[in-house]
Amino acid sequence: MEHSVTFTLDDKPVTVSVPTNTLLADAAHLAGIDIGQPCGGQGRCVRCAVQVTGGTVRRRSTLRLSPADVEQGYALACQTVVEGDVSIYVPPQEKIERRLTTDRVVAEITVPEDYEYSQVQTVRRIHLELTPPSMDDQTDDWSRLQIAFRLQHRFENVTCSLPLLQKIGDVLRDGEWNVTAVVDLANIIQSGESNHHIQLIDLQPGHVDEYSPLWGAAIDIGTTTVSLWLVDLVTGQVRAQVAEYNGQIARGEDVISRIIYASKDGGIQDLRQHVLDTMNNLLDMACKRVKATPQDVVKLTIAGNSTMIHLLLGIPAGSIRMSPFITTVNHPPVMTAREVGLKANPEASVDCLPGVASYVGADITAGVLSSGVDVAEDVILFLDVGTNGETVLGNRDWLVTCACSAGPAFEGAGVVNGMRATTGAIEEVWINSDTLEPTYRVIGGGKPRGICGSGLISLLAEAFLTGILDKGGNVNLLANNSRVREGTHGGEYVVAWGAESESGEDIVISRVDVDNLLRAKAAIYAGFTVLAATVGIPLESVSKVLVGGSFGKYINVEKAVQIGLLPDMPWEQFDFLGNTSVKGAYYALLDWRKREQLAGIAKRMTYIELSADNSFYDAFTSALFLPHTDLHKFPSVVEALKK
Amino acid sequence: MEHSVTFTLDDKPVTVSVPTNTLLADAAHLAGIDIGQPCGGQGRCVRCAVQVTGGTVRRRSTLRLSPADVEQGYALACQTVVEGDVSIYVPPQEKIERRLTTDRVVAEITVPEDYEYSQVQTVRRIHLELTPPSMDDQTDDWSRLQIAFRLQHRFENVTCSLPLLQKIGDVLRDGEWNVTAVVDLANIIQSGESNHHIQLIDLQPGHVDEYSPLWGAAIDIGTTTVSLWLVDLVTGQVRAQVAEYNGQIARGEDVISRIIYASKDGGIQDLRQHVLDTMNNLLDMACKRVKATPQDVVKLTIAGNSTMIHLLLGIPAGSIRMSPFITTVNHPPVMTAREVGLKANPEASVDCLPGVASYVGADITAGVLSSGVDVAEDVILFLDVGTNGETVLGNRDWLVTCACSAGPAFEGAGVVNGMRATTGAIEEVWINSDTLEPTYRVIGGGKPRGICGSGLISLLAEAFLTGILDKGGNVNLLANNSRVREGTHGGEYVVAWGAESESGEDIVISRVDVDNLLRAKAAIYAGFTVLAATVGIPLESVSKVLVGGSFGKYINVEKAVQIGLLPDMPWEQFDFLGNTSVKGAYYALLDWRKREQLAGIAKRMTYIELSADNSFYDAFTSALFLPHTDLHKFPSVVEALKK
Repeated sequence: MEHSVTFTLDDKPVTVSVPTNTLLADAAHLAGIDIGQPCGGQGRCVRCAVQVTGGTVRRRSTLRLSPADVEQGYALACQTVVEGDVSIYVPPQEKIERRLTTDRVVAEITVPEDYEYSQVQTVRRIHLELTPPSMDDQTDDWSRLQIAFRLQHRFENVTCSLPLLQKIGDVLRDGEWNVTAVVDLANIIQSGESNHHIQLIDLQPGHVDEYSPLWGAAIDIGTTTVSLWLVDLVTGQVRAQVAEYNGQIARGEDVISRIIYASKDGGIQDLRQHVLDTMNNLLDMACKRVKATPQDVVKLTIAGNSTMIHLLLGIPAGSIRMSPFITTVNHPPVMTAREVGLKANPEASVDCLPGVASYVGADITAGVLSSGVDVAEDVILFLDVGTNGETVLGNRDWLVTCACSAGPAFEGAGVVNGMRATTGAIEEVWINSDTLEPTYRVIGGGKPRGICGSGLISLLAEAFLTGILDKGGNVNLLANNSRVREGTHGGEYVVAWGAESESGEDIVISRVDVDNLLRAKAAIYAGFTVLAATVGIPLESVSKVLVGGSFGKYINVEKAVQIGLLPDMPWEQFDFLGNTSVKGAYYALLDWRKREQLAGIAKRMTYIELSADNSFYDAFTSALFLPHTDLHKFPSVVEALKK
Repeated sequence: MEHSVTFTLDDKPVTVSVPTNTLLADAAHLAGIDIGQPCGGQGRCVRCAVQVTGGTVRRRSTLRLSPADVEQGYALACQTVVEGDVSIYVPPQEKIERRLTTDRVVAEITVPEDYEYSQVQTVRRIHLELTPPSMDDQTDDWSRLQIAFRLQHRFENVTCSLPLLQKIGDVLRDGEWNVTAVVDLANIIQSGESNHHIQLIDLQPGHVDEYSPLWGAAIDIGTTTVSLWLVDLVTGQVRAQVAEYNGQIARGEDVISRIIYASKDGGIQDLRQHVLDTMNNLLDMACKRVKATPQDVVKLTIAGNSTMIHLLLGIPAGSIRMSPFITTVNHPPVMTAREVGLKANPEASVDCLPGVASYVGADITAGVLSSGVDVAEDVILFLDVGTNGETVLGNRDWLVTCACSAGPAFEGAGVVNGMRATTGAIEEVWINSDTLEPTYRVIGGGKPRGICGSGLISLLAEAFLTGILDKGGNVNLLANNSRVREGTHGGEYVVAWGAESESGEDIVISRVDVDNLLRAKAAIYAGFTVLAATVGIPLESVSKVLVGGSFGKYINVEKAVQIGLLPDMPWEQFDFLGNTSVKGAYYALLDWRKREQLAGIAKRMTYIELSADNSFYDAFTSALFLPHTDLHKFPSVVEALKK
């Protein structure tokens, strides 16, 4: 029986007639539409997903699609056959990636429902009307202002900095004794004592509209990327999101090389200035988008790993690197933008959020806050897949954390053709199981220059599933294929020939690269398994695995499971949260209760030092395989291998 | 009857024989000893004072000597006759000036009896022994330090600045976890609440001797002179006293010209830098004397008039000058040396003491504190004879204050040959009533360059008593004397001929100069009389007149009464206290209770604005005469004129 199949691509419908049980992929081919099948039509790569908008089809496999995806009509063209007249929408490739919930894209940022500026925000904008001075009322300007604070707002103890004091006389007179003040009530609110001091942050002549934006910034200082969210503290809305490479990268890729650089003469000042330049640049960019200036930013919260926070503040970080690995400060005092060197309002409070230890910093506590691990009923595993491989396990009753020195392999370092996730990086790879020919996606769309972290995970998984790599990570040189060969670093697989690459050189992955990647993934896997074992929690009782970090957003969960980086659990138990650190900083920026909660998280988290634990070494050794020595831990991989 | 008179001078006795009733001055002449008699033997100048060590003399007049002086044997050679064999000690001239209590020299600074460093000082030096970190104790350095503060000293809430935080890791390790901290407990002590914060000011490796000096500085910023006392806060002793001209002088002599200069572009920054340079230079000088460095100074208190404090802090002072004459701040918040720009320890607290109004500043409140007006049982009149002519009247129950714009005439400005009290200034003058020839004393002993404030008072009084000037201040041109002549500014009197002076020009006082001086003294006199009248206190019920200011130290009380600058009261009711401002700052530096007392004084003092008071103008006009229109107010002057 023939059925008509109508494909719509770029708003142009094309109809073909095919018999029952024809694969959608074949029907598309007949219609002259090329739907990519990088994995060779095995239903592994999800690159051939289309949307069935009408009619009946049968999905042979929906393994890679979530129930929500299926409900929306998504189907894999290589795994779906026609059973009647059907209408098919072929989305542009980039839309596919965004639409499939399987990809678990980061949710839009919504203002917390309970955000009430006048209740939970420590920074407030208030109006003051002063009685002008006269010969009969010789009160000095500053006392006059304090009296107005007291009588009009019951603020008993307002203090201000010298630079602000220098301008209040002019502001009061410019405003003809009507002024708008921005005050920080953090001390009073947090202590609950009304005689604690209130900091005056800004004073402007006249009455500024009460509901016009009052700007704050939430910042995450990543070793690689600095992210900044510009927030209107009145509404709580994130009004601009900007990110940029950390200017310190020029001085070393990972925290260890930065610490070494910082210990050189003038090194710490140099690193400090680099990250300040990056942050000030981001402030500029974000403020321009909303037609504000950095001087309008009156409150900042900053998350970041402990080394990043030390370097931002110019605090020597040498002891972080040396046993017994001690930070100078996990919870820096609240400072002003002037002290820190940020070009926000000089009086703006800069709150570097609390961390836990040398390798579990404020980025992780902020991540726990924003992902809700600390209030969860069930046990949650929170992973930050990066150089330090920070892991948190726990729920509302307990929280344990560890860091495993995974090394920078997933950030592209220690891998010959590795690179950061920037333009020219291969970010995803599919290998055809018949031909061993790869298909890849390059960031920016141009010629490949190397392979970034998510590309390496994807490549490793594909190479393993297609038999190019064996369980031990050895390259199968017996495969009768020109892409598999003996190279200078042992066996290697050619991902891109020199003719395709930007440099003209072949882009390969070698035995040595694989070893580095195996060590990195084994460290992370060993980290969370030992952590779970330490507290006697079987991995099966983990209800959710939350993957944080900007990097985490791009990881393909299935491939990460296939190489044994992530535990083998149903997809719906994974959540890729993106930058949980900046989100936590955002929550802390908005709501003093969240800020208190964050301090509580830092206090509650029990840090477990893995280097002092023999079982870590055993777990690490067992995990140095694809996916693991113990295949029982990875039933889905066993299943995939059978195919 | 003949008597033997033995004079001892420079340890060499000379004996002469003279009849009864011989003047000591004549006997001395006979003995070949030249005792100066600048006033012509009228008993006015006190320059011929000698000490009768044995035998009987009769003093014709002791008007210029206090009962204490007489008790010690002092007698005026020109007013004392021999009545038996006598022994006379002829002290060197400079010793006379120091010994006579009439001169009321400033007392040595003694540490307040109740000074107990560990009780009343807010800054403390303490030792801490920390447990070193280990793999089992991963506490960060700053928390470790805070724990030691808590356990070893019960300090619950220690905070520190970023620059200090930057160095604590190294200090802890350098000291092998034994350190010495300097902390400022002012917040806790003053609030009485132990959860207020304690500021960490310094942290040094190892255990510094608990009793080694801990340096503080008390500073008075005068419009003309800046004085600094370097104090060991442990013992309370003043270990160095230094003073220097305020570097702002180059930008104007008085506060008004400074305020005008400050309002120019960059003017305030320029003035601020000048006074900072002066203060930093003084810190250097004082510290060198005790083999310390400015960085060792951990606490500073600063007094000064309101304009000086504004300019030090870079706060615009324009409104001080313009009606209704309002300061920006009378009581600046406590700051750090870093914020203020002083080269002490950057974390040192800088406490600019509280003032009352635009023209009654912290120099006056500090003066009241150190002179004890605010705790006196009887009514005291406190005068600061300077450009602003600040006056305080009161006792432990009440305090009123005013300032009268006396102008800078007594500081040498507005007088053709006027100058500051520096080398080459004529500081005292005596005029022989017969010859009208002057005798003068020059600061530094060299050729005269001009006349300073005390010299002008002295000159005015002498010229009045010898008839050179009449009651209205007119120069008596009928006097048949070459020193009295018509000059370009009206009648004038030549104090020093060009042949004696440094410039080669005659040094004179003219009718115009006299007018300026009369206005200055009339303003001061009118100030305290109107103040007294305002509160209904007759001047007679004033028990003491305290004269503060470095300048006050050099005023001859008798001459100041004779020109009608000071009220006509017995000498013993006057006290010349020298720099009461820096002394008050010293008390506030030592003892937090004194600091509270000072704040109380500033609050208690009722400021009376004279420019709004018609009676001031009347009193001023009446006082524009020598000594006053109403001679009944000056009985001692009437007496002197009779002679």
